Amino acid sequence: MKKYSVVFIPDNLKIEVDAGTTLLEAAQQAGIHVKSTCGGKGTCGKCTVKVLNGVVSGGQGNIPQRLREQGFILACTAVVESDIEVEIPMEFRLHEHQVLLDDNVENEGLLAEGKLDILGDYPLDPLAQKFYVELSPPNLMENASDYSRLITELKKHVPAKWLNISNDVLKTLPDILRAGDWKVTVTVAFYEGGGEIVRITPGKDDFPAYGIAVDAGTTTVVVALIDLSTGKVLAKQGTYNRQADYGDDVISRIIYADEFKGLEKLQKVAIDTVNDLLDKVFEEYHVSIEEIPVMVVAGNTTMTHLFLGINPKYIRLEPYIPSANHYPVVKAKEIGLKINPQGLVFNLPSVASYVGGDIVSGALVAELDKKDEITLFIDIGTNGEMVLGNKDWLMCCACSAGPAFEGGGISFGMRAMPGAIERVYIDKNTYEVKYKTIGDKAPMGICGSGLIDCLAKLREAGIIDRSGKIQDVDTPRIRKGDDGPEYILAFAQESGINKDIVITESDIKNLIRAKGAIFAGVRIMLSMADLPIEAIDKILIAGGFGNYLNVPDAIRIGLLPDLPQDKFDFIGNSSLKGAHLALLSREALGFADNLGRSMTYLELSIGNAFMDEYVSALFLPHTDLSLFPSVTE
Amino acid sequence: MKKYSVVFIPDNLKIEVDAGTTLLEAAQQAGIHVKSTCGGKGTCGKCTVKVLNGVVSGGQGNIPQRLREQGFILACTAVVESDIEVEIPMEFRLHEHQVLLDDNVENEGLLAEGKLDILGDYPLDPLAQKFYVELSPPNLMENASDYSRLITELKKHVPAKWLNISNDVLKTLPDILRAGDWKVTVTVAFYEGGGEIVRITPGKDDFPAYGIAVDAGTTTVVVALIDLSTGKVLAKQGTYNRQADYGDDVISRIIYADEFKGLEKLQKVAIDTVNDLLDKVFEEYHVSIEEIPVMVVAGNTTMTHLFLGINPKYIRLEPYIPSANHYPVVKAKEIGLKINPQGLVFNLPSVASYVGGDIVSGALVAELDKKDEITLFIDIGTNGEMVLGNKDWLMCCACSAGPAFEGGGISFGMRAMPGAIERVYIDKNTYEVKYKTIGDKAPMGICGSGLIDCLAKLREAGIIDRSGKIQDVDTPRIRKGDDGPEYILAFAQESGINKDIVITESDIKNLIRAKGAIFAGVRIMLSMADLPIEAIDKILIAGGFGNYLNVPDAIRIGLLPDLPQDKFDFIGNSSLKGAHLALLSREALGFADNLGRSMTYLELSIGNAFMDEYVSALFLPHTDLSLFPSVTE
Repeated sequence: MKKYSVVFIPDNLKIEVDAGTTLLEAAQQAGIHVKSTCGGKGTCGKCTVKVLNGVVSGGQGNIPQRLREQGFILACTAVVESDIEVEIPMEFRLHEHQVLLDDNVENEGLLAEGKLDILGDYPLDPLAQKFYVELSPPNLMENASDYSRLITELKKHVPAKWLNISNDVLKTLPDILRAGDWKVTVTVAFYEGGGEIVRITPGKDDFPAYGIAVDAGTTTVVVALIDLSTGKVLAKQGTYNRQADYGDDVISRIIYADEFKGLEKLQKVAIDTVNDLLDKVFEEYHVSIEEIPVMVVAGNTTMTHLFLGINPKYIRLEPYIPSANHYPVVKAKEIGLKINPQGLVFNLPSVASYVGGDIVSGALVAELDKKDEITLFIDIGTNGEMVLGNKDWLMCCACSAGPAFEGGGISFGMRAMPGAIERVYIDKNTYEVKYKTIGDKAPMGICGSGLIDCLAKLREAGIIDRSGKIQDVDTPRIRKGDDGPEYILAFAQESGINKDIVITESDIKNLIRAKGAIFAGVRIMLSMADLPIEAIDKILIAGGFGNYLNVPDAIRIGLLPDLPQDKFDFIGNSSLKGAHLALLSREALGFADNLGRSMTYLELSIGNAFMDEYVSALFLPHTDLSLFPSVTE
Repeated sequence: MKKYSVVFIPDNLKIEVDAGTTLLEAAQQAGIHVKSTCGGKGTCGKCTVKVLNGVVSGGQGNIPQRLREQGFILACTAVVESDIEVEIPMEFRLHEHQVLLDDNVENEGLLAEGKLDILGDYPLDPLAQKFYVELSPPNLMENASDYSRLITELKKHVPAKWLNISNDVLKTLPDILRAGDWKVTVTVAFYEGGGEIVRITPGKDDFPAYGIAVDAGTTTVVVALIDLSTGKVLAKQGTYNRQADYGDDVISRIIYADEFKGLEKLQKVAIDTVNDLLDKVFEEYHVSIEEIPVMVVAGNTTMTHLFLGINPKYIRLEPYIPSANHYPVVKAKEIGLKINPQGLVFNLPSVASYVGGDIVSGALVAELDKKDEITLFIDIGTNGEMVLGNKDWLMCCACSAGPAFEGGGISFGMRAMPGAIERVYIDKNTYEVKYKTIGDKAPMGICGSGLIDCLAKLREAGIIDRSGKIQDVDTPRIRKGDDGPEYILAFAQESGINKDIVITESDIKNLIRAKGAIFAGVRIMLSMADLPIEAIDKILIAGGFGNYLNVPDAIRIGLLPDLPQDKFDFIGNSSLKGAHLALLSREALGFADNLGRSMTYLELSIGNAFMDEYVSALFLPHTDLSLFPSVTE
């Protein structure tokens, strides 16, 4: 097959590709992660690149006019026809290894008195433990088999109804027993009331058993190494989910998995993402993969399906049925995870197609099922997922808020990475703007918290009306752009991308639709429970996003219910924390299973109630101002 | 690497081998199975070949003088140094595909009234079953996951405490549910009180679930396809265990596995042997491999270790400890068996290193644990394995009888295959001989039953004395051979190998040692139970050997206790039958586990009792003639 060279600028990275390769595929082969929301169909207009030298065919698709005029084409539809040189601007790439971890690993989870915060009321009873046993050596009279000798002694120590050994581990037993002079350390992982013998080592091993907690998010993946004897986080690493190369959101990945036969690919890159993080974790804290007998993964329903290689296609099709909400416990080797090959991998259960193990994980660690007070748990990402209730009842729902709060569908939207505008201040008189970026770098775009700020401040300054329409006010920052009116947040010369950073009226409408969907979900749940907004005792905001959210602004735009500040709490990456908790407590894992089964799932697409609420919420803050007394004041 | 051609005669089969290959390896590569007892160490003298053209180096070792004079060398130590032509006489080969199956498949196991003989008192409750379920289709209100929908309905039908689904099977579920319009047939394999979902197919499937019973013998392997709904044998195939290329008996295979790093190889050829038989079985009765959810294997302890890839080395070393007596249930795919990859493979439990799953299988199907009468179960192969007792107590032991009764260590010994002398008649006056061969072919050697006959008839005719010494009687059939005195059973011109077929005095001593070991084992067990010989109500003789055994002759030489003929029963291949029974009855499989645990194993190497009994038994029939009143009469 004919080969061409492709040189990527500004990296100056050169690779060889087969004729017929698309530029998006070439970039993936080169390890350059280009944004793509649609999974390579030419519709999202994200994977824009500029050919500097050489010939490509195709490259058409939905490209913003501004970029088209600058000579940009779409990488996903452009086929390499000669040796070429192509520019992929840094701002169009998914930056790797820059995921902001919300906690300080050193002291994570430890309260002052040494009791683990994360355990709450659960006793420390981890999913895996090491047991040291001394056996009597065999002789001609006492000639029980090696395994029988081991198991008889082990049963005295291991709190499990049954013990299982795989053929692979059994194979190692005879030599290890003799190498350890009939004294061995046995690592047991617990599940379903029993124990799986994952590893046997000669002699006494004083190191603890370790576990891995994984937050397998659509956008970011975080992996934490946990000491199962103390519960402490020893190392933590995060990165972008490599599946993002095949689509930004779960829907485009489901399409890629099914219609593009990409299921195996998506599973592989998800596993690769975790394995790469494991490598980094083990660099940070030195343990060998054999020492990891257990992993707990929290992901949404689609992520979990893809992680296990289960086709998620029916999640997308009415009536939106997942293959499973409770997943088989698999051995690490079955799916290629780089912990002990015999190690057990638990995926936290889902409730429904759009309320997954990440939400169950959050509800678990927030102990929603143990509290008298009525709590609203809310995770704002691509979807807004919510849980409402207390120890007597719990309901949940998911609203398709779209990716606006993650920067998706917004002209200069971007994820919360260095250079993202996260805070905005607008002078009500001059309409001039001040902003703060993550890492205090020159601005490259706006992330979710910046967008909320922006919306609230534009409205406060009277630059937009209650429907989000940009008003005709006298400032050079308002102009007519290609897509209609827009407000300039940062001029090209101050920006990090040498372009004006704007928010367009169309962006604003997108944001209003997103916040409207979430607030409509809250309203539907309250109405199902026949409760007024004031009945909510506590609002827990989860997700990386939650850490940077300006609550008064979020109330001001009608995203969050108008309640006193002290009712709001940020609980950080509750998906990871729930996985962490499940690692430390067999009881907690059992409760997660129950949570998955006992939460009532509200399917919002039934009937018109949600649509009615949604339409009412398409104003700032809402059609019904009485719902936001603090805003109207 | 330099290559040479090797042509095998009389096959005229030509292959290419690397320089440095031994002739034994070359023969294995060519698919020619040459006898070898020692595992290629040059000590057993079995793999004799004659180089007709070309150069080899080496070839030395323990070669019978007669053969050495004819130009024979050892294949295992001979290295190919040029293109060569080599003769491997047919009688030195392991003939394949000629294992005699003792039953007629057509009506096997069925008694007249249609009740399965093999079930005994057990109810038909097979290890796998198919269940047809009709599910209600999901909708927006009833949006349980596919798996939850299936399992809820399935639990109403399946008699199991729990049900498990593997990730691999779960992956197939969503499309199959929809292809079958929410009606599916689920194949469940049962174990440990629960059920494993092995396969799901759309719609209603009226075929039964099938199972495979395997007798994994040291010498021969037999595979039977069983209809689990009726219990009937649908097809049966047997062949020689391909492990025989690496040694005739368990000890030489253990050595090969451990010292020659041959463990993986031995596992592979054992699995290959079974897979080849499965192919033939499926030719005989057409089912697809996916339709086989379960297999039960009965093998001795070493065979079972090798089948699972567990190093059996400690079986051979005092104090003779197996890695396990109860083996993990494995999935077929884990060890490469060609049934449904998700199918469960059960290995029947062992009692000790030298009393294995084949004996437990026999004890199970003979219902030793259910009878009032005291039964002696005896399986004479390379080892003599015995069980004695009734429903209240069972003991067992193994005596190293050596391979004499399988033709090992005997000048013209051979297995029970066509051309083997199986009956011998000697005229007391003329010392002339008549014989009968298997298949009525020209004689090529003597098999076990022929050897017993021979010994009894030689003694009866006064040709040998009570110690086995050949007497100076006047017949041309007695002569002095290379290894001392010998008796000619068939002259070269009447033989199928153009050689005199003889039994030497040294062969006779070997046979006396073998029968002495077995009888000593019987005596030890009786003495442990404090019972006289007459207390034995029934003697069950198991194994392919048992079918052709002449009981009066076996008593006459002192191999079997001197009891009335009607106390003896042949139970055929009880190893296969027990596996067959376990497939049909979960209760029986449970009893097999109990049997494995509850039998008292007598280790004969402790103390001098066995050696004393053994020495006393080195006469025909015994030192103590009062033990054989019918013989002395």
